[in-house]
Amino acid sequence: MTVKIFDTPDVQDFINTIAGYDQDGGNERAKQIMHRLVSDMFKLIDDFDVSEEEYWSAVNLLNALGHETQFGLLSPGLGFDHFLDMRQDAIDAEAKRTGGTPRTIEGPLYVAGAPEAEGFARMDDGADTDGETMWLTGQVRDVNGHPVKHAKVEIWHANSKGGYSFFDKTQSEYNLRRTIYTDSDGRYTARSIIPSGYGVPEGAPTDVVLKSLGRHGERPAHIHYFVSAPGHQHLTTQINLAGDPYTFDDFAFATREELVIPANKVDDKDAIAQRELDGPFSEVVFDIELNKTDAAELQTRHARPRAKENEQDQASQLAGTAKV
Amino acid sequence: MTVKIFDTPDVQDFINTIAGYDQDGGNERAKQIMHRLVSDMFKLIDDFDVSEEEYWSAVNLLNALGHETQFGLLSPGLGFDHFLDMRQDAIDAEAKRTGGTPRTIEGPLYVAGAPEAEGFARMDDGADTDGETMWLTGQVRDVNGHPVKHAKVEIWHANSKGGYSFFDKTQSEYNLRRTIYTDSDGRYTARSIIPSGYGVPEGAPTDVVLKSLGRHGERPAHIHYFVSAPGHQHLTTQINLAGDPYTFDDFAFATREELVIPANKVDDKDAIAQRELDGPFSEVVFDIELNKTDAAELQTRHARPRAKENEQDQASQLAGTAKV
Repeated sequence: MTVKIFDTPDVQDFINTIAGYDQDGGNERAKQIMHRLVSDMFKLIDDFDVSEEEYWSAVNLLNALGHETQFGLLSPGLGFDHFLDMRQDAIDAEAKRTGGTPRTIEGPLYVAGAPEAEGFARMDDGADTDGETMWLTGQVRDVNGHPVKHAKVEIWHANSKGGYSFFDKTQSEYNLRRTIYTDSDGRYTARSIIPSGYGVPEGAPTDVVLKSLGRHGERPAHIHYFVSAPGHQHLTTQINLAGDPYTFDDFAFATREELVIPANKVDDKDAIAQRELDGPFSEVVFDIELNKTDAAELQTRHARPRAKENEQDQASQLAGTAKV
Repeated sequence: MTVKIFDTPDVQDFINTIAGYDQDGGNERAKQIMHRLVSDMFKLIDDFDVSEEEYWSAVNLLNALGHETQFGLLSPGLGFDHFLDMRQDAIDAEAKRTGGTPRTIEGPLYVAGAPEAEGFARMDDGADTDGETMWLTGQVRDVNGHPVKHAKVEIWHANSKGGYSFFDKTQSEYNLRRTIYTDSDGRYTARSIIPSGYGVPEGAPTDVVLKSLGRHGERPAHIHYFVSAPGHQHLTTQINLAGDPYTFDDFAFATREELVIPANKVDDKDAIAQRELDGPFSEVVFDIELNKTDAAELQTRHARPRAKENEQDQASQLAGTAKV
């Protein structure tokens, strides 16, 4: 069939009605975006002669994705997170905020409220005996090479099975999640374990979408960062460990050349003793460069629904109220 | 900010990768549709300068819609169901399948496997004492006016509170759901109760979307039909009862002029006695005209996930197996 109805007055009027153009209430921007969205989708249905069967199986898939809270997992898989990063890069370039460590996607697995430490923290609870000891360290600097002291470095990563505490209920609370403030020399250090990559669960709705595109759902081993300090632009980034088969084939498109970091095996006795470790370890060095900015809105991460973040906000607000 | 990156080679290459164009596996049509979908969405983000906050609140809303299995409720609210009907109408017109009772949207509340009857059924279980008695009747004819005997007329509707059995767990199984085969004169008759309209639940994700457009989520009182008979085109339709404040302001866009039917109050003693009723009732007469077709695929409803339908299929298959 080659029926095309999109350009008919009936359909065009209908879209105006759908978007609430004839209604006084509502939000003008929401109406305009919905008008565009529905127009795009109707035109797509027309152009591809999408059948009712195809349409309803898509609706079914959307329900399944939401049932399993997977839109935040599908989103990076369909490149939206990286596309937003590309836009932010372009916005920064236009504003001459160049240099600094590149941003990359946050992913859906951050949990607010991790334990805080000054300079050093041990991140693992010792339960993951398959985990190889990791010594993760670096210096936070501004773009002129000056150390940034008391920068807030939030780090979270998976265990040796690719699972994240909070979402993986077999792990202890905040395992492999810490907030470390840099010391007077801008340095942070964490003792932890080398994370594994992980894959989208086989047969999950996100996997169904990726498979239909001939794609896999694997991520390389990686470590997430939020880094912030007054007067500097907030940085959301992650490092990918070099040598993982998926380092340059990440389904979430988070890999950036500058963020691929080697894990160097160290078995020197003095180095082990100096760090008070029991045996050989892998050292990962990630120095971070922050852009300067006076704009307050650039100094904090953007709003997004995050696990426990609202509770934290509420707790802070309550604490604030109590002080008054 | 006025950053536009959509047309850059980087973004265009990225979309090819997202859609799996460089992968051997997967489904060619899925790749092409995903390429178009992601392109449309990226361009929309660019054109409207969609912020990260806006993007992530949309992702959150998608998760919430799926959590409550509301994509099938939002879909008619955003006009997709009616748009698909408009396309089917155009396809029928092109194929010269004109005449016949108009189709309209199915909605998400059909349940397969309702009790079957010949000619007449009582649909209500008598528990809804607020429900006004309805005498629903009509004749199924072909486009030449000839009665169609043993046509399968599936009817489902809400109770006096606007609730549907199966989804509303306070109602008995299959209350207000029946399959009636027409008699030798093509007639079907149901004793039931006048349904009420219903509204999208206040504060539900679908309501959030509609409110942002300045729209309401109300439907007028209506009665759903599937009608089928060998040699005739399957009909999915519904009638809206005249006089409801939302008859011509249905959030689901299901109303069609020809499908607005009056409920006529009858208090004539003979008419009451003839129908073996206890008192006055409202009569709703809906005659149905079916198009002829030899095409088997047009004689059945399109595939779509429906409550209990797969179980029915499985049961039929098992029964088939047992017979072998």
